[in-house]
Amino acid sequence: MSLINIQEGAVVMNNFQFVNPTKIIFGKGEIRKLSKEISKNHKVLIIYGGGSVKQTGLLDSVKEHLKEHTIGEFSGVEPNPSYETLMKAVEIVKNEGFDFLLAVGGGSVIDGTKFIAAAAKYDLDDPWKLLTDNRSVTSALPIGVILTLPASGSEMNGGAVITKKSTQTKLPFFGPALFPKFSILDPVYTYSLPEKQIANGIVDSFVHVMEQYLTYPVDAKVQDRFAEGLLATLIEEGPKALADKENYNVRANIMWTATLAYNGLIGSGVPQDWSTHIIGHEITALFGIDHAQTLAVVYPAMLEVMKDEKKDKLLQYGKRIWDIDPSLPKEKRLSLAIEKTSDFFVGMGLKRRLSELDLGSDAIDQIVKGLADHGMVKLGEKGLVTPDIARKVLEQSL
Amino acid sequence: MSLINIQEGAVVMNNFQFVNPTKIIFGKGEIRKLSKEISKNHKVLIIYGGGSVKQTGLLDSVKEHLKEHTIGEFSGVEPNPSYETLMKAVEIVKNEGFDFLLAVGGGSVIDGTKFIAAAAKYDLDDPWKLLTDNRSVTSALPIGVILTLPASGSEMNGGAVITKKSTQTKLPFFGPALFPKFSILDPVYTYSLPEKQIANGIVDSFVHVMEQYLTYPVDAKVQDRFAEGLLATLIEEGPKALADKENYNVRANIMWTATLAYNGLIGSGVPQDWSTHIIGHEITALFGIDHAQTLAVVYPAMLEVMKDEKKDKLLQYGKRIWDIDPSLPKEKRLSLAIEKTSDFFVGMGLKRRLSELDLGSDAIDQIVKGLADHGMVKLGEKGLVTPDIARKVLEQSL
Repeated sequence: MSLINIQEGAVVMNNFQFVNPTKIIFGKGEIRKLSKEISKNHKVLIIYGGGSVKQTGLLDSVKEHLKEHTIGEFSGVEPNPSYETLMKAVEIVKNEGFDFLLAVGGGSVIDGTKFIAAAAKYDLDDPWKLLTDNRSVTSALPIGVILTLPASGSEMNGGAVITKKSTQTKLPFFGPALFPKFSILDPVYTYSLPEKQIANGIVDSFVHVMEQYLTYPVDAKVQDRFAEGLLATLIEEGPKALADKENYNVRANIMWTATLAYNGLIGSGVPQDWSTHIIGHEITALFGIDHAQTLAVVYPAMLEVMKDEKKDKLLQYGKRIWDIDPSLPKEKRLSLAIEKTSDFFVGMGLKRRLSELDLGSDAIDQIVKGLADHGMVKLGEKGLVTPDIARKVLEQSL
Repeated sequence: MSLINIQEGAVVMNNFQFVNPTKIIFGKGEIRKLSKEISKNHKVLIIYGGGSVKQTGLLDSVKEHLKEHTIGEFSGVEPNPSYETLMKAVEIVKNEGFDFLLAVGGGSVIDGTKFIAAAAKYDLDDPWKLLTDNRSVTSALPIGVILTLPASGSEMNGGAVITKKSTQTKLPFFGPALFPKFSILDPVYTYSLPEKQIANGIVDSFVHVMEQYLTYPVDAKVQDRFAEGLLATLIEEGPKALADKENYNVRANIMWTATLAYNGLIGSGVPQDWSTHIIGHEITALFGIDHAQTLAVVYPAMLEVMKDEKKDKLLQYGKRIWDIDPSLPKEKRLSLAIEKTSDFFVGMGLKRRLSELDLGSDAIDQIVKGLADHGMVKLGEKGLVTPDIARKVLEQSL
């Protein structure tokens, strides 16, 4: 067996700490709880992206529910939220004394809000250091969330990813102060999402689960079962979400799945991968490709290249999730598991190959250079995904 | 379909709030983190049960890790912790100014500690009112836990059950202030448990899951999959735990399952039952039968009596958990699902019938009277379990 021996020579569940203080307020109409969740002593900055929250009336509804609060607005947080845009908000927060940040949107708005919340508290000569100095963020303004797009899991975790446009760099940061105080999850808000965003969210959530699940076995039975439950739900509900925009249960199941996919629970006590995410971030930073689309092309190729290392879990995944006949030869079962994963992404409407995104070997050179430049040289659950392996993966995905 | 219509005529996932602030510190040797989790400004009362934590050396280890803290000890919290015993601790806490309570033990010690923590803060003429006035406990001394017995889930929830010996009454209470600040879960501490306690813990955890899962469908796919994952793990690991006392992974999986079985997550957004638990509490209060043993006799009988109301979920459970052939007639599949549940409890070493516990129809009269006296007259997910139905269940279990 290709297993790392973790403790005293035996394969055991890793020790872990798990804590998640975010209060989830889930369901239709729950925005009615908003006003009570934020003290009236706070000066609240409402942060959002483009015009969609205006068009749907959600922004008006938020303001109506906060009519007894002192509020301001900051709009224009872009997909892959940029340092450059967010620093404008940091200035406003500092100058005008906002002391509660309310993110209304999806992962980009929430992640951007987390950066603003931290940068406003840390008195750094260069706030970008929050991303580069490997700091655990222990101080930040309090954050609330009204979620409109199930995908990133940022509504119930202490992480965020920010892009510096000037250098085409996309990096994550983490810390206990970044957990939202509360997140309101109303599945009805997802009815108005474009099909592409719902599909992207489903693929993103799916790969979040896989990055924590599809590594090597440590006999963590509950974490495996929970991960498999999330994957099964996405496979079951994903196509329904595209076929029927206003099915409450489908949207509710997807929303709760996306949150639980990356809130720390299924990753507790198990090895984690994340190599595909990091390679994907480079692709997005360089070429502006949607995050989920980068995952859909890279992930199956990663499984293909790493299938010997991952074979035990890949066989378990194939059997439990895709019902692959255990009497087939092992190589066949491994390739079927990978094929079905890629087919699921394609079924959600995403592209299968880098070449379909008009990226070729020049692009691969740039991506691999980006990984090396950002110190991303030993990725994956065992640190085996070097820039050379990343190149193999990207060539596999051409 | 025998479904309650919850919102606008459609069967949908219920709205819910979920928050769980307890920090879990999981794994071998993690007691080394204890000292840092409690501020040195606190005066810590260590609370435990009988002599087992002394015999195993755990108490000495706790004191060694708290050698820089000011500490005291309170021992003698019994199984089914009694109001009478706990009030002695409340006096000590108040008189000596303890302001942090450290529970070292299983569910009884943790539940007792929760009562002490709340009673020390509430200035009630009669602290038993914490149990009887349906209050949400919002103030309590901070609690830490070192868990020795996986079963109750109390280490990661805001509930507790206390018994008043003088009136043979066993009642639960709840509140956000009752969540432990931290719980240290070291599977190695369970190696020294008597087989019976491990078996009881597995059955208790199993029924905790069932009380939240086996009701009627509301299309809550993730909650169902998570519940099924916990059940599958208990079925897989339970027999191994009895056969091998020192298998780390088995004990780790059972410990984490027991905690997740009753921490609020799988019960979010779904109807809940709990009728078996409430009937079981009456049996324990009257006759001193182990909590898990009361569940093992009552639960299969409850399923039998309520199988029409529960049939949709019971069929799903039979198929997914026990792999019952879907081509069998429905009645056969229902009875098989119930039979396999009872067989699992018996396989863990518990008794199947009330009569095996030397309880007969006189006892049933007393139990049913107890339910009525305590206002427990509309139990279960639809309030259909009246004292008359409870009598039917108990007669079924004879």
